[in-house]
Amino acid sequence: MSKDQDTSKLWGGRFTEATDSFVQRFTASVNFDQRMAQEDIEGSLAHAAMLCQVGVLSSEELAQIESGLGQIREEIANGSFEWSVELEDVHMNIESRLTQLIGVTGKKLHTGRSRNDQVATDIRLHLRKAIDHIAAELSRLQLGTIGLAEQHADTVMPGFTHLQTAQPVAFGHHLLAWNEMLERDHGRLLDCRKRLNQSPLGAAALAGTTYPIQRELTAASLGFDKPTENSLDSVSDRDFAIEFCGFAALLLTHLSRMSEELVLWTSAQFNFIELPDRFCTGSSIMPQKKNPDVPELVRGKTGRVNGHLISLLTLMKSQPLAYNKDNQEDKEPLFDTIDTVVDCLRAFADMVPAIRAREDHMREAARRGFSTATDLADYLVRKGLPFRDAHEVVGKAVAHGVASGLDLAEMSLETLQGFSADIGEDVFEVLTLEGSLAARDHLGGTAPAQVRAAAERARALVEARA
Amino acid sequence: MSKDQDTSKLWGGRFTEATDSFVQRFTASVNFDQRMAQEDIEGSLAHAAMLCQVGVLSSEELAQIESGLGQIREEIANGSFEWSVELEDVHMNIESRLTQLIGVTGKKLHTGRSRNDQVATDIRLHLRKAIDHIAAELSRLQLGTIGLAEQHADTVMPGFTHLQTAQPVAFGHHLLAWNEMLERDHGRLLDCRKRLNQSPLGAAALAGTTYPIQRELTAASLGFDKPTENSLDSVSDRDFAIEFCGFAALLLTHLSRMSEELVLWTSAQFNFIELPDRFCTGSSIMPQKKNPDVPELVRGKTGRVNGHLISLLTLMKSQPLAYNKDNQEDKEPLFDTIDTVVDCLRAFADMVPAIRAREDHMREAARRGFSTATDLADYLVRKGLPFRDAHEVVGKAVAHGVASGLDLAEMSLETLQGFSADIGEDVFEVLTLEGSLAARDHLGGTAPAQVRAAAERARALVEARA
Amino acid sequence: MSKDQDTSKLWGGRFTEATDSFVQRFTASVNFDQRMAQEDIEGSLAHAAMLCQVGVLSSEELAQIESGLGQIREEIANGSFEWSVELEDVHMNIESRLTQLIGVTGKKLHTGRSRNDQVATDIRLHLRKAIDHIAAELSRLQLGTIGLAEQHADTVMPGFTHLQTAQPVAFGHHLLAWNEMLERDHGRLLDCRKRLNQSPLGAAALAGTTYPIQRELTAASLGFDKPTENSLDSVSDRDFAIEFCGFAALLLTHLSRMSEELVLWTSAQFNFIELPDRFCTGSSIMPQKKNPDVPELVRGKTGRVNGHLISLLTLMKSQPLAYNKDNQEDKEPLFDTIDTVVDCLRAFADMVPAIRAREDHMREAARRGFSTATDLADYLVRKGLPFRDAHEVVGKAVAHGVASGLDLAEMSLETLQGFSADIGEDVFEVLTLEGSLAARDHLGGTAPAQVRAAAERARALVEARA
Amino acid sequence: MSKDQDTSKLWGGRFTEATDSFVQRFTASVNFDQRMAQEDIEGSLAHAAMLCQVGVLSSEELAQIESGLGQIREEIANGSFEWSVELEDVHMNIESRLTQLIGVTGKKLHTGRSRNDQVATDIRLHLRKAIDHIAAELSRLQLGTIGLAEQHADTVMPGFTHLQTAQPVAFGHHLLAWNEMLERDHGRLLDCRKRLNQSPLGAAALAGTTYPIQRELTAASLGFDKPTENSLDSVSDRDFAIEFCGFAALLLTHLSRMSEELVLWTSAQFNFIELPDRFCTGSSIMPQKKNPDVPELVRGKTGRVNGHLISLLTLMKSQPLAYNKDNQEDKEPLFDTIDTVVDCLRAFADMVPAIRAREDHMREAARRGFSTATDLADYLVRKGLPFRDAHEVVGKAVAHGVASGLDLAEMSLETLQGFSADIGEDVFEVLTLEGSLAARDHLGGTAPAQVRAAAERARALVEARA
Repeated sequence: MSKDQDTSKLWGGRFTEATDSFVQRFTASVNFDQRMAQEDIEGSLAHAAMLCQVGVLSSEELAQIESGLGQIREEIANGSFEWSVELEDVHMNIESRLTQLIGVTGKKLHTGRSRNDQVATDIRLHLRKAIDHIAAELSRLQLGTIGLAEQHADTVMPGFTHLQTAQPVAFGHHLLAWNEMLERDHGRLLDCRKRLNQSPLGAAALAGTTYPIQRELTAASLGFDKPTENSLDSVSDRDFAIEFCGFAALLLTHLSRMSEELVLWTSAQFNFIELPDRFCTGSSIMPQKKNPDVPELVRGKTGRVNGHLISLLTLMKSQPLAYNKDNQEDKEPLFDTIDTVVDCLRAFADMVPAIRAREDHMREAARRGFSTATDLADYLVRKGLPFRDAHEVVGKAVAHGVASGLDLAEMSLETLQGFSADIGEDVFEVLTLEGSLAARDHLGGTAPAQVRAAAERARALVEARA
Repeated sequence: MSKDQDTSKLWGGRFTEATDSFVQRFTASVNFDQRMAQEDIEGSLAHAAMLCQVGVLSSEELAQIESGLGQIREEIANGSFEWSVELEDVHMNIESRLTQLIGVTGKKLHTGRSRNDQVATDIRLHLRKAIDHIAAELSRLQLGTIGLAEQHADTVMPGFTHLQTAQPVAFGHHLLAWNEMLERDHGRLLDCRKRLNQSPLGAAALAGTTYPIQRELTAASLGFDKPTENSLDSVSDRDFAIEFCGFAALLLTHLSRMSEELVLWTSAQFNFIELPDRFCTGSSIMPQKKNPDVPELVRGKTGRVNGHLISLLTLMKSQPLAYNKDNQEDKEPLFDTIDTVVDCLRAFADMVPAIRAREDHMREAARRGFSTATDLADYLVRKGLPFRDAHEVVGKAVAHGVASGLDLAEMSLETLQGFSADIGEDVFEVLTLEGSLAARDHLGGTAPAQVRAAAERARALVEARA
Repeated sequence: MSKDQDTSKLWGGRFTEATDSFVQRFTASVNFDQRMAQEDIEGSLAHAAMLCQVGVLSSEELAQIESGLGQIREEIANGSFEWSVELEDVHMNIESRLTQLIGVTGKKLHTGRSRNDQVATDIRLHLRKAIDHIAAELSRLQLGTIGLAEQHADTVMPGFTHLQTAQPVAFGHHLLAWNEMLERDHGRLLDCRKRLNQSPLGAAALAGTTYPIQRELTAASLGFDKPTENSLDSVSDRDFAIEFCGFAALLLTHLSRMSEELVLWTSAQFNFIELPDRFCTGSSIMPQKKNPDVPELVRGKTGRVNGHLISLLTLMKSQPLAYNKDNQEDKEPLFDTIDTVVDCLRAFADMVPAIRAREDHMREAARRGFSTATDLADYLVRKGLPFRDAHEVVGKAVAHGVASGLDLAEMSLETLQGFSADIGEDVFEVLTLEGSLAARDHLGGTAPAQVRAAAERARALVEARA
Repeated sequence: MSKDQDTSKLWGGRFTEATDSFVQRFTASVNFDQRMAQEDIEGSLAHAAMLCQVGVLSSEELAQIESGLGQIREEIANGSFEWSVELEDVHMNIESRLTQLIGVTGKKLHTGRSRNDQVATDIRLHLRKAIDHIAAELSRLQLGTIGLAEQHADTVMPGFTHLQTAQPVAFGHHLLAWNEMLERDHGRLLDCRKRLNQSPLGAAALAGTTYPIQRELTAASLGFDKPTENSLDSVSDRDFAIEFCGFAALLLTHLSRMSEELVLWTSAQFNFIELPDRFCTGSSIMPQKKNPDVPELVRGKTGRVNGHLISLLTLMKSQPLAYNKDNQEDKEPLFDTIDTVVDCLRAFADMVPAIRAREDHMREAARRGFSTATDLADYLVRKGLPFRDAHEVVGKAVAHGVASGLDLAEMSLETLQGFSADIGEDVFEVLTLEGSLAARDHLGGTAPAQVRAAAERARALVEARA
């Protein structure tokens, strides 16, 4: 009997015609869902053990199933397992092999469940494993970022708004801004895990099953917090995949912002940092090139993840309950999102600690561009001018500086006093980069002492969950 | 002095040319950000009180500011406030009016803050208020859904997969699947609120301020859990808006699924429910029409919210720190998402409890379509057949039924025994709709007793947070 | 010498450190861009022939290159080519193999070009080939749809608005609405091809080359309409990929609408059509199930294509000129969009002609639901009533029908005259389905004669381009 | 009689309950569709004239309608028209006012049409008008860009790949790359207009009408190329809106790339250009700031348009034919896309010609960064080295330059000859920026002569369509 005929027997009685061979390939999922084979076997082992506990399977049958699934796990691990598109998906491939190995008992494994709750269980297990790995990589990136920030609590760079020089900031302060984004991402990831960690197993096709199953048992043995509440929802819900992609879209958005900065900072024009050669590539044509490939590529991958998020939202829009074949399209976007997140985090967690700051260039850039103009205005306020008037005075001094090519700190006292008689000798302290930094000395400000304290708090938070 | 000249004085010193009048209109935000006027004033009151506490403002100055802002609040409430595009945004409109009202002291209000942290504070306050309202409406919709489910714990309808009749389910069970989606939405909303509820006030332009501000004071008086950790992040972060839109996209996706079902169920072909006339409209041409406008429109609004989510993700992609003008584009998508969510929830919370089930049509539809075929297969398994063989037997009986126009329960015992000699008189109990429902008697299953228990748990959960 | 060392020599002089091995894998594209190997070789052959024509290569060198590339083409076709991730991409893999085969002449092939213009050329050639295949499949689906429409120019079904019975229409008329969508898609596809069909070859890295190339020659030999106008644009432009994905998103949106209708029509509630078993699958649990998998899956794939469109738009947003590494992310979304479109069109082109209409059920559904109410109103207008008054009269008759369970044509003349004395014996002709159809006898209307004429025009249009 | 009762009479007969007042507001569209009032009246005038021509209206009735609509047009223009939410939409508001003005004849205007084909006509007319305005603005921006390119055919700047200095290019060449993007956008816009320009009027509710309408007449008088082919498609098709948003998403993507470059170029680090003060704003806090608001804001608006595209695609996904209420959601995204495109084009068309290049800074940046390294490699190839070896030699020279702080042209002949004995005195010509530019002298290359010729061709193309 050919495999094809064998397959059609799954729903043979009602059908008078075999599936079209293109349709078979078009509707099969085994090429991408075989990646969940490990979780499929875990779920089956838990299901079989429960069936034995409630008396549906005998101990001997359970032992047979456990032995057969153990062998299949082995075959998959060593690459000898033969996947068949005719058998549609990972579930039927494994079940069919099991029956080959242990005979009719293999068919009993599917008692009291359906592929609808089985696939929902597999995806949740697979995603949960991925989340745990991602959480660890995210923490590693955070520690690398915080570590670099600690080294640069005193390193001065220009802070930008509108990509125009705004005020001097500590490079370490800037890096801790990165860490804040990542810390929120970590929180979102854990919230997603919390909501995902419920067991749909036992929802069966859509309405539950007539067998005396105990869903609490499989939930517990698979590490779920509890069984899901409603069978229809259990087989039709893909919120967890969308919520995870929402997390990923925000994470990649953050990485794209960091990447943009790394690309800017490695340009000849900024020249604020150097990336080690091992994270860069050259050009086959232009011998002088050293390109920041890693951040560029990560920045580009933002599109990929945003796309997958839209893909899944569009997929679920307007679907009536319960399971529809549309849902088969949930896996590829989710899996690719997982892989993208894992790779991008690895690349960043390796690269960030290796960033070498060109402190001299940063400092020089901060010194130019009138970055302490606000400090001068604040100084005049302390001398009694209303802020708006102080702003006007400094604006004129800057206009003079633009025309004459002098920064504020380079002007003579006489020149400065030409703009306001309130300016005294003490102004030059205010116009230093160190003075400017140190003056922003409150929670969240860029004063080096604040940066050190913030880094310490951030590190404690990450280390507490390790 | 014209308004235009007055405005340009905000940054007058450095500029030699007035803003182009089209550019002024193009870059102004007051037309949409005036909606945050209330929150802007709240934030200013808290800031002023703190400035007084740390000695930057005198008590008299504080009193003047409080009085002026009180009057402005009044003017806005009664519509007499004159908004000006020349003054760009809600912040400058209010500050400028304050200075008109109380003179030079008005200018001191801006000490130690910038529009960058001010707008970040305003949006968070505005969104937090919206979230609290939305959470209440969501709970109201959940209670309406659970209430309807309680009424229909025994009402039989066909459960569908692939929109094909699958197995009988209780209508109340189906409604509780809706509630599960909404319950997850509620959890996501609260997680979003938790992350949002930190005060960016005091981050100033990007680096903090040289004034001796105490950010913990303003955070506390505005009801924030604490100040944000990093000034650069505080002015550039829009995660909260994206996370909220992510919540909204999933909520609308859920409402689109319910809407799709309502549209199907009110069609002549399904005819499962009736919506009261007050939620429907007719046609100006076709006198017989009664259209389910509300669910159709809500279904359509899914696109709007998905679009806003993409809008914000695209907006933030690749933005270097800290604040860029791009961010002005954050408000309209966020505000429209809030309004859409509020309206759709109101429409559904009003409509769902008013759904009238046509129990006879539901039951008749469940009776047809061989919905108890799985029960027959399970019956044969209990008689000793392997499930795959039982499936084959039932498949043939169904094929006979399709040809003869008879459902399984309508066939004679002899006919049924023609497919398997294991079938006995007791088969007809198994083939009843009530028998089928009652047999799925485990946590999450559709047995009426389970539905009642599930409704009770669901209600307790919602009521506990009221 | 290891491959790794060999590779690093591509840009060896300037670098002091080998590429990190994870980074090498992360930044390599050969796993997905090898799919353009055929086009890469075509482009190289055209480039080499041109280099010979302008005197950069000798005839002997050209012959060597042609022979070497011929062998590589063979090796790739028969699967013996060894792809190497160390060699990054399809271009370097082929060039490196060429140099292995023919020695130093192989290195001359890259004269006057760069991978930047090479990859742009490859993608355009690859996409153009795909477009031509897709255009043919689209026409095949259109002919199948038109053919079915021709068979059903007289078959009556209820036309819906708001999924409520609106007016009777010919099933053939409905099918021709599908064809109109596809016809617009065909136009968009050709417009995309027109804009894409220009040769970027010769743009080199970004600025052109110092060699005396003749871009018109390679453009012509590769079947392009002409060379592109600007070298910077040529290496940074990905409009063609986005425009193609825009086409695909609209096509899939159309297929999703048809799919939705097929799913509705095969439900037990509608029961308007039957799909052959070979396009459906059953359930491993529920023996009675016959699921419309193909339309469901196609509907789900809409999300995939919308996602890829967003992916590419996000990718290109804010990229400064000219080429950036981000652009490597252009290929996977584009290729997957091509594959999705090809598969979905094949599935539909095979399936649509095999749709079997259940004419009796369609007719019965049209007969019910007061579908000729508008005809009755129009009848009363012809008798002299203002339309708004006629609408009111018919509305009341319908309300009576809803209450009494009678359709308009089932009411007695007396009953009808109770609503308006203007109603005469001739009303029953108006209330027939055939009368209703035939009366809409103008261009674009549902009268069977119009449907036949429209089908003829549609067929002529498609056949003219074959 | 209250307005509410009056309204309900539109479909009064069948309904027993008035519309809920919140639902009335929720489902009304008049707040945003009143913007199409002008087109609604145009369509009505054409429809009435046709009805008269085919004998459905008398000449007197036509005259009355024309006079009434004329007055309404006036009232809307001068702001005296009273819009009513109770009347739902622009169509009913105008029709209702018409009946107030001219009595019962007003009701006859709706003969042979429905709001379904009416709104489809209105949107097409409205969008067509917008397209014509946008096409003109696009051409204006192109001419401004080309004009600036003509001025800078010889101005040298560094060309970038990966934002790293790659090769010198003419600033005019870079600007013409911008023009190429815009030229493709123009083509897409015209293709969209071509497909949109067909008249849906006469499709009526979904199936055509029983009145003897002549759709060719209204099509011609409204400037459409011809009537649409299928009534069901006519009322359900929104392709034109999606295709337009697809055009807009690509246009804004292009503008975002130009914006990104403008933001980079105005930074202190690049300092390549200056934008006039009238396109910039300052900071209320930092007196030195001059922010490039216009390009930043345009860059941000990319998200808005991408979002609207997704909004419309999501809206249409899975909608069964023909008209559904969901479609009311088509207008706001479309209108906002139109406004965004119009404003962004105006801002750019005004701003681009006013860009002032800082030629000295551009030149200096090109001089540094080893931008002529490829020229040196090409030089060595001409001296007989294989390219890969030449690349290696130059790579080493660059490494020396990085270490010693000397660019290639600054090294002594002896130093250079230390890397390759093939280097002669003539090398310094090759290393000049002018030499590098002039050497890329082929179609699409950056040689100033090519740039001038390209600008001439580009200008001719744009001017030919004026």
